[in-house]
Amino acid sequence: MTSLVRHITFDCLDPYRLAQFWSEVTGYQEDPDDPNLPDHIEHLILPPDGGPGLLFVTVPDGKTVKNRLHLDLQPRDRTRDQEVERLLGLGATLVDDRRVPDGKGWVVLADPEGNEFCVLRSAAERA
Amino acid sequence: MTSLVRHITFDCLDPYRLAQFWSEVTGYQEDPDDPNLPDHIEHLILPPDGGPGLLFVTVPDGKTVKNRLHLDLQPRDRTRDQEVERLLGLGATLVDDRRVPDGKGWVVLADPEGNEFCVLRSAAERA
Repeated sequence: MTSLVRHITFDCLDPYRLAQFWSEVTGYQEDPDDPNLPDHIEHLILPPDGGPGLLFVTVPDGKTVKNRLHLDLQPRDRTRDQEVERLLGLGATLVDDRRVPDGKGWVVLADPEGNEFCVLRSAAERA
Repeated sequence: MTSLVRHITFDCLDPYRLAQFWSEVTGYQEDPDDPNLPDHIEHLILPPDGGPGLLFVTVPDGKTVKNRLHLDLQPRDRTRDQEVERLLGLGATLVDDRRVPDGKGWVVLADPEGNEFCVLRSAAERA
């Protein structure tokens, strides 16, 4: 008697652009059989190994305040700092640098529509 | 060169209460070895089969506008309507009933701190 988390859904002005950005971030891919694909009103990208997809839906209004929900990301095969550089290169912006001198901490970035997310240390860095 | 979605993080006034609610919704459980468990500043609940956890962190401010990110839920072993009734009984509130006469559609609920989420049809209902 529970529910599956099927999607994490983002309200967007430009769901295609945001889906492209998050696909680069996560490696999730759009399903070519998705019937919504051609209409550009919403876009769904899915992880290759199951789990919640990221769904981007069009809304008329832009973001106004800090999001109450956000994603925490852990680099798979790079360090936190390498991944931050990669994501800035993809169009993310720096919101808050919470790295501390002992190597711990995280970095808050925002996606191209200003949605905040955090980049944590990789599993190797945490070990 | 990608990042894993490690947590979906909720800013909360009462992370313990919200973690309890979402644990009932999803079946995710708190890790008894979590070093943050006793301090009640943050709570993390994890799915039994891997995948992103739900992390609840204390912030000073309450929710002010509709969330830009939300979760879409799919009942595992009940119908959409049965799950909506269960979740209302757990303390969710009704935000928007988007069910339509042909049986499709969804229901927007909010958790005890007002975070919107959607209840979709079960896999059996969509089949």
